[in-house]
Amino acid sequence: MKFEPTPATDAIGKLVQEFAKLPGIGPKSAQRITFYLLRSNEEQAKALAEALLSLKQRINLCSICCNVTESDPCPLCQNPQREVSQVCIVEQPQDIIALEHTGVYKGLYHVLHGAISPTEGVGASDIRIKEMLARLQNNTVKEVILATNTNMEGEQTAMYLSRVITPLGIKVTRLARGLPFGTELEYADDVTLTRALEGRSEF
Amino acid sequence: MKFEPTPATDAIGKLVQEFAKLPGIGPKSAQRITFYLLRSNEEQAKALAEALLSLKQRINLCSICCNVTESDPCPLCQNPQREVSQVCIVEQPQDIIALEHTGVYKGLYHVLHGAISPTEGVGASDIRIKEMLARLQNNTVKEVILATNTNMEGEQTAMYLSRVITPLGIKVTRLARGLPFGTELEYADDVTLTRALEGRSEF
Repeated sequence: MKFEPTPATDAIGKLVQEFAKLPGIGPKSAQRITFYLLRSNEEQAKALAEALLSLKQRINLCSICCNVTESDPCPLCQNPQREVSQVCIVEQPQDIIALEHTGVYKGLYHVLHGAISPTEGVGASDIRIKEMLARLQNNTVKEVILATNTNMEGEQTAMYLSRVITPLGIKVTRLARGLPFGTELEYADDVTLTRALEGRSEF
Repeated sequence: MKFEPTPATDAIGKLVQEFAKLPGIGPKSAQRITFYLLRSNEEQAKALAEALLSLKQRINLCSICCNVTESDPCPLCQNPQREVSQVCIVEQPQDIIALEHTGVYKGLYHVLHGAISPTEGVGASDIRIKEMLARLQNNTVKEVILATNTNMEGEQTAMYLSRVITPLGIKVTRLARGLPFGTELEYADDVTLTRALEGRSEF
C-alpha cells in the first residue's frame, strides 16, 4: 500500500501555480501569497483580479513614442512642456519611469521594446527602430540620447543606433558609464572601473 | 513652472499597487511583474485573475479538522487509510503541506488558524482549540502531536494545549527541537543548541 501525500486543494494549487509563473516568485513565495490571500478579506483578491483583467484591455502603445499608454498620443508626447528637440531612446517602458523619477530630463522618449541580441535572434527589425527613424524625418529632433542598458545587448543596440542616426546630422549621445553612487572602489568590477577611467573628466 | 514627472498609466499603477500589497513583494518587484504581464500573452493575466476569483468561492474549512478544503470533510479526514488515533495539531494549513511532504506521518490533523499571542491579543478562544477539544470527546484519539511553530507563540500554544489535553488521558507529544539538518555547530544559535543538548538521546 503506497502512501500518497494529499496535496492542497485544486483552487489553491492552481493559484500557487499561476503565481509561481511570475518573475521573482518561486513556489514557496507563491504558496505564501496564496495562503495570505486566503486569510485576508475577499476584496483584496478581487481587486487584484480586476486590475489584472483591465491591464491588457486598457493599455496600448503610443503611436509616436511606442510607450505603453491608455490615451494616444501618450501623456508625455501630448505634454506641451516637454522639449521636442530631445528624444531619449530606452529599451523598456519601465526605463521611462526610472528616468522620470530623477526629474532632470524634460525631453521626449522612444521605447524600443527590446534590444538587439544576435544570440537570442533579435535583430534591428524586431524592435521599434523603424518607428524611431520615422520620427527623425521632420527635422525637429536635434539630439538623440541613447539610454539602452549597459550590458552587452544594450551596448550593441546603442552602437547600431548611433551608426544609423549620426548620418542624419543629429547629435547622438550616450548615458555616462562609470562608478555608481556609493561605490567602494575595492569592490567595483573591472568593466565598470575601466569605463570610469576612460570616461574621467577634469575636476 | 514646476516640472511634473509623468507616472505610469492608471491601469498599470493600479496593478503595481495591488501586487505590492502581497507579502514579500516590494514596489520594484510589483512593477517588474506588471510589465512582465504586459509583455506576455493575455491568457496568463486572465488565468491568474480567474484563479484568484475562484479561490474564496471554492474554499471552505473542513468541519472536522478545520483545514482548507473544497469538499467537506476534507480529503485527509475522508481517507480511510489515515490512522484516526493520531491527531497532529498545526498552526496553519500550509504546515500540513510541509508535513505531508515528508511522507512519514499517516495520522490526521487539526488546524488552529493561529497561535496564542498575548502581545497581539490572540487568546485561546480566538483560535480553533474548542473544535479540537470537541474531537477528543469520542475516545478514538490516543495521541496528540503538538506541531506548532518553535517560536514564542508556538511554544506558548503548545504549553496551553498540553495543559488542557493531558487531563483527558490522551498522550501528548511535541515535535523534537534540536539542530536542523546540515548545521555547523559554530553557527547554531544558543536556543537551538540548548534544546539540542536538553533533548540529546543515546547513540
